[in-house]
Amino acid sequence: MRIDILTLFPEMFTGVFGSSILKQAQEKGLVTYQAIDFREFTTNKHRKVDDYPYGGGAGMVLTPQPIFDAVNHVTEQGGKKPRIVLLCPQGERFTQAKAEELSKEDHLVFLCGHYEGFDERVRTSLVTDEISIGDFVLTGGELAAMVVTDSITRLLPGVLGNENSAVTDSYSTGLLEHPHYTRPATFQGLAVPDVLLSGHHENIEKWRREESLRRTFKRRPDLLKGYALTKEEAAFIEQLKNETE
Amino acid sequence: MRIDILTLFPEMFTGVFGSSILKQAQEKGLVTYQAIDFREFTTNKHRKVDDYPYGGGAGMVLTPQPIFDAVNHVTEQGGKKPRIVLLCPQGERFTQAKAEELSKEDHLVFLCGHYEGFDERVRTSLVTDEISIGDFVLTGGELAAMVVTDSITRLLPGVLGNENSAVTDSYSTGLLEHPHYTRPATFQGLAVPDVLLSGHHENIEKWRREESLRRTFKRRPDLLKGYALTKEEAAFIEQLKNETE
Repeated sequence: MRIDILTLFPEMFTGVFGSSILKQAQEKGLVTYQAIDFREFTTNKHRKVDDYPYGGGAGMVLTPQPIFDAVNHVTEQGGKKPRIVLLCPQGERFTQAKAEELSKEDHLVFLCGHYEGFDERVRTSLVTDEISIGDFVLTGGELAAMVVTDSITRLLPGVLGNENSAVTDSYSTGLLEHPHYTRPATFQGLAVPDVLLSGHHENIEKWRREESLRRTFKRRPDLLKGYALTKEEAAFIEQLKNETE
Repeated sequence: MRIDILTLFPEMFTGVFGSSILKQAQEKGLVTYQAIDFREFTTNKHRKVDDYPYGGGAGMVLTPQPIFDAVNHVTEQGGKKPRIVLLCPQGERFTQAKAEELSKEDHLVFLCGHYEGFDERVRTSLVTDEISIGDFVLTGGELAAMVVTDSITRLLPGVLGNENSAVTDSYSTGLLEHPHYTRPATFQGLAVPDVLLSGHHENIEKWRREESLRRTFKRRPDLLKGYALTKEEAAFIEQLKNETE
């Protein structure tokens, strides 16, 4: 997969792309990341990439020319039409399902906004997808582009070893994870639950399943709606409901 | 404000904290960021920070000792009890309201997880808040910590100039933004709406308000529930409903 990120702050990406799973994925040749300064594509003699909004008002708006030309450039390099993803507050909420969809593409282009926003013609005539990572205000699209890049890269075949794949699988059960404990058995007076030290695998499995259900019930009851409960699990949820009444 | 980030990948933060608004905020002395490698605090002679989970299973779990000691260290440095925020999938969904709440603190500590997760005693006996930025799988808590740091820093008094503050204000109207256009008036055959070139301020305001309502109605109808519509706005929404029927 090829990921091109069009930004005015390419230096923001160095540390993130050079660490951990993202670095390993690039070293294995499974993905390439390029953070491209679209200011390099402006035809304005003062290297400007923004201008005042038509109709007046505060803030500056990114002009279409450098962005269209930068997208043309990476499209030619890639050899076929990429998905062009605008990171913006108005976009569709990013989810794991969207990450899975995008992970099947050969070439992704991310556009990171700043200032008041983009000229609308970028939205209507260039981008194929608009993504928001949540209802909070960020300085620009860069952090959102990193988040989306990370979640997609993890899904590419060969990126994760078996051990890490298991982590993803456990998320995809649709429930929140049960608590984890490791050494020491007692830390600052705080003890690990006895069952986990018992060596009784069936009881351990039961405890984990119930703690996972309990946490999901308490924190994210919405997730239970899409989850097919076994008879035993349904009975446990009823018990939790009675406890809270 | 002081923000300490406990992580195994401190080098991930350099580019982000050294760019744009976050850099300026630190240069103005309004906030300090420290990315601290909690591996430095382990008492394990092989510098290990994780161990096998009690009860068996795949994945490694971060041990409590280095994290408790790192938090103690930054708490002593800060001089009073900080908010200690765990970035994790099980946490409360991050919102602008949470950003505003956290922006009033003097000292924040972010804990970034990796591997299978944290020993549960970190969650039950150390952290004050658990935050998730969304329903997608990330390699670790680092990107979430950057997102939260950015959204909080923007809210600190003196960080944004007047021009950028206006951008935040427009978000806080509770509606999605209207489209923006800038030069040229026609780009690759695509024209700016006539009204924006008319110089008729009343019509421009009306167009913007209606486009903002239209976009919110189409993309985020949930936002309209919390929004007090004027009579005129309510009539426009009714018109949009009729159009889509």
